[in-house]
Amino acid sequence: MTESTVTESRQIPDVPALFADRDWDALRDILEEMADPDVAGLLSTLDRQDWSVLLNLLSAERAASVYSYLTTEQQTALLDDLTDDEKAQIMEELAYDDATALLDVLPDEHAELLMDMLPFEAQRMLERLLAYPEDSAGRLMTPDCVSLRPDWSMREALAHVRRQAEHRETINVLFVTDDGGKLLGWMRLQDLLLAPPKAVVSQFVDSDVISIEAEADQEEVARMIRHYDLEVVPVVDPDGVLKGIITVDDVMDVMEQETTEDFHKIGAVSVLPLGLGEATAALLYRKRIGWLMILVLVNLLSGAAIALFETAIEQVVALVFFLPLVIACGGNAGAQASTLMVRALATGDVRLRDWLGLWGKELVVAFGLGVTMGLAVWGAGVWLGGAQVGLAVAIAMVLVVITGSMIGVLLPFALVRVSLDPATSSVPLITCIVDVAGILVYFSIATLILHVSPI
Amino acid sequence: MTESTVTESRQIPDVPALFADRDWDALRDILEEMADPDVAGLLSTLDRQDWSVLLNLLSAERAASVYSYLTTEQQTALLDDLTDDEKAQIMEELAYDDATALLDVLPDEHAELLMDMLPFEAQRMLERLLAYPEDSAGRLMTPDCVSLRPDWSMREALAHVRRQAEHRETINVLFVTDDGGKLLGWMRLQDLLLAPPKAVVSQFVDSDVISIEAEADQEEVARMIRHYDLEVVPVVDPDGVLKGIITVDDVMDVMEQETTEDFHKIGAVSVLPLGLGEATAALLYRKRIGWLMILVLVNLLSGAAIALFETAIEQVVALVFFLPLVIACGGNAGAQASTLMVRALATGDVRLRDWLGLWGKELVVAFGLGVTMGLAVWGAGVWLGGAQVGLAVAIAMVLVVITGSMIGVLLPFALVRVSLDPATSSVPLITCIVDVAGILVYFSIATLILHVSPI
Repeated sequence: MTESTVTESRQIPDVPALFADRDWDALRDILEEMADPDVAGLLSTLDRQDWSVLLNLLSAERAASVYSYLTTEQQTALLDDLTDDEKAQIMEELAYDDATALLDVLPDEHAELLMDMLPFEAQRMLERLLAYPEDSAGRLMTPDCVSLRPDWSMREALAHVRRQAEHRETINVLFVTDDGGKLLGWMRLQDLLLAPPKAVVSQFVDSDVISIEAEADQEEVARMIRHYDLEVVPVVDPDGVLKGIITVDDVMDVMEQETTEDFHKIGAVSVLPLGLGEATAALLYRKRIGWLMILVLVNLLSGAAIALFETAIEQVVALVFFLPLVIACGGNAGAQASTLMVRALATGDVRLRDWLGLWGKELVVAFGLGVTMGLAVWGAGVWLGGAQVGLAVAIAMVLVVITGSMIGVLLPFALVRVSLDPATSSVPLITCIVDVAGILVYFSIATLILHVSPI
Repeated sequence: MTESTVTESRQIPDVPALFADRDWDALRDILEEMADPDVAGLLSTLDRQDWSVLLNLLSAERAASVYSYLTTEQQTALLDDLTDDEKAQIMEELAYDDATALLDVLPDEHAELLMDMLPFEAQRMLERLLAYPEDSAGRLMTPDCVSLRPDWSMREALAHVRRQAEHRETINVLFVTDDGGKLLGWMRLQDLLLAPPKAVVSQFVDSDVISIEAEADQEEVARMIRHYDLEVVPVVDPDGVLKGIITVDDVMDVMEQETTEDFHKIGAVSVLPLGLGEATAALLYRKRIGWLMILVLVNLLSGAAIALFETAIEQVVALVFFLPLVIACGGNAGAQASTLMVRALATGDVRLRDWLGLWGKELVVAFGLGVTMGLAVWGAGVWLGGAQVGLAVAIAMVLVVITGSMIGVLLPFALVRVSLDPATSSVPLITCIVDVAGILVYFSIATLILHVSPI
């Protein structure tokens, strides 16, 4: 994807200048016209001392909404600047799912102070939500949803929806429960609207309701919503009692976050808790040094493998010229295979049980790739090192590309098999493993063809 | 992410056995209980001759919905098996956005045959939709949406919605237009429901409507929906006339497709038009050989760089032992930096204008990484090659890691600058470029410290 142009394409007036002029009326008019995510974007362009001023120009409800779109760093910074009253107002207006997300990332003493500002009932609810495991459906859900009883008439149901609608995240989908709160089914708001007023809810309810348990991982929520094209999924406890709902917009953020994690892993970077723009150099160092040091160990094996062929190198130095070429090509083919597998496993396009067919297909592809590349480098080998070096390079290329591809296709499946994330099979890891294998294959072929003693 | 378990966790009865027994009644009962995406998944497990039988067990409406969830290959295969009547029925029931997506991928003669089966009005509409550029908002939208007039009373509006609701993809959001169809604003269905029946539409309409032009790229649609947490975005022509709507579930598919493309690119695989499971070996070969051959050329430069130091290698063969280690570590650090940048540019987390700050931060991080890794390999160098080789390896490591990281952070920005996709800066490409730079740095340092003549 290329750079975002969404916010840039909308004309933004010179807000910093208006701040300098203390022209509050003009600012209020401008903010009135802007969408909440854009106001959050605008805040980033202001000096920090103006952040709380900006929020105070908004109604409490909008301030809370804008606040929920800010980065964690901005949210924490603002807590230092706002008065206790302002903080309490924002907390009260925050949707439950935004509030749990905030309390989750704050240092404990900050979180406790904020909790204390809330009414007792809200505190109880937030504590219950925070008790769910991290990254679970329970943490992602909001408990605000409208539930109907099966024996209500449409008129009663509509009246209930009207009373409840104000503070609900969505009423597009309505859930039907029994008196104990057990989820029985769902109906769309439009069905309620189109049904005759005297009909009964149970006549229109769809009992094939897709729900998810509160303890389930957020990835499963994302997969369910995408698979079934849902706009909202109900969250239930083990007894099937409706606990809350998760809407598709919350899940889009989860999807993006999970994809970013996979993306970073394929480049051998550990999971970053912050965006790249927010991350400090120290954090980036910590998230990168681990894999780099593991890869150093694998690379030392490459050195050991080369040392095995010291005598051969002394006899024909030209062999070394082609070493980076041959091993890099094996790594490149392996990187392609691994990337394809990791992504296909993540999207569910292929499953663990498909490994044998994919391995067979990869063998065919790798053979074709290896022969093409072998032919391409054969000429260069003959030219720089003579006929025998050319032959050695060409044959080694075919074998190394096949070896690399096999490692690239099988490692992700092997990782899934032992319950590890296939994305751990990163391109740098594949490249380094293939380096070792490639060195052994290349020098073995070369010593055979050139009749030099390996050691 | 790990493997999908959504479909697997729902118990699926032994449908192939029921097919073998020709037990249509039992099959109908089972299908009745299943969600459409699951029926599509079920079809994949059946023999091809049973696919059309399965669709015929469903109502025309459900058959069309299930058909829209199938892969392109399955859709095309089914067109050969279905009678003309069956085809026409499915085409008539398909939503416009699914129909355009289908016609788009079919061979021309197939597409024309299908078009001819449709009523004249539907043909006209599909032709208009297909005239929009590929991957544009116009191709993604469905023209079925409900529009209200600003001077209608809520009672009139509700009656209009009730009449129109049947065949609309969503009526959660209602659009308000003037008599010429120009988009004036929007309101939510729940606002219509909560307003007093005698109030006028214009009193409740939100005129800050976010819309997108039909010619805009689908990526921009995805970004807009995600940025503003929309469930539906209206599509307009250059004059602001409402042409259709795009719902969030359509955009989730686009997002997944775009992310897969980026993911493949970072592994140096060109864009695959099919899923990995469906792609033939020949297609995979074609999508992989291009980048591999380009990388061969870069790798030949590595060979040339080594050849520059032939004499030095002949004098101290131990230098070669550390070559793969040093250049691989530079490549690994570069791969990390590049992956972080490519993803951050794709999500909009960082922009082109941020390059200088990120470059500075990367310099600090790379210095830290290089020193850590240099210290780690210093001991190995001293042990295997003596004090001077150890020193040369350690110093080269610091410099190569910094060089690699700089290339990794700057190449994606350079690509954006010249309007190329930053994901072109793939890990294999970075690795190969850093290989060349690393060889030059490593041998230069080594010849300096070891006082060997380079050539």
